[in-house]
Amino acid sequence: MDQPEWDPYVRECPTRQLLDRIGDRWTVLVIGSLADGPRRFSGISRSVQGVSQKMLTLTLRRLERDGLVTRTAYAEVPPRVEYELTELGRSLREPLKALEMWAKDNMATVLESRTHHDEAMTA
Amino acid sequence: MDQPEWDPYVRECPTRQLLDRIGDRWTVLVIGSLADGPRRFSGISRSVQGVSQKMLTLTLRRLERDGLVTRTAYAEVPPRVEYELTELGRSLREPLKALEMWAKDNMATVLESRTHHDEAMTA
Repeated sequence: MDQPEWDPYVRECPTRQLLDRIGDRWTVLVIGSLADGPRRFSGISRSVQGVSQKMLTLTLRRLERDGLVTRTAYAEVPPRVEYELTELGRSLREPLKALEMWAKDNMATVLESRTHHDEAMTA
Repeated sequence: MDQPEWDPYVRECPTRQLLDRIGDRWTVLVIGSLADGPRRFSGISRSVQGVSQKMLTLTLRRLERDGLVTRTAYAEVPPRVEYELTELGRSLREPLKALEMWAKDNMATVLESRTHHDEAMTA
């Protein structure tokens, strides 16, 4: 198979849209919440506090379509549906965790910088 | 100073918005384009192909406000303005590069997965 050279610096390269997708807050948090194993919708929803049902459904559908998450429905009563990271999804966990850590480690510094910046603007 | 525990899994935590910000395609690409040293607006614009002037201006302003980029105006004729990563900005480069690499390395697999998924949906 011909392997195109993917390059997000190039206009129209689909990696740009993929970057948006994987860097999205809900993607980061949902993949993080599945890091320790399969979970049901309700479990993910509890872990990612305040995510709307609509947004969580959309995020899971996109992750499934992109091959990062599998959805398995068990024929039980009541029916049970579980979401689980694929190998590809697990491979994304590390970069996303680094992003999450960066945000936590540097939130205070960024907030300080915003305050200084806004004060300088209104001075 | 009291250090709150930042946690993007918690509703209202500002790290959520920060995650969106740093995972945004333009942030990833602009920080990448500044990785090798200071550049002018026009240089960044050439490197990040197809970015609109408006979007690049907005992205640089946000990065400046968040303390990731400095803007230096040199009193020359014609005036020269350069953008440069701060130490904080440089600390974000590695996680973002990992994200960029992931997107490039896995774009083909994700596209295949989308095709299979959409075929299964319409079958």
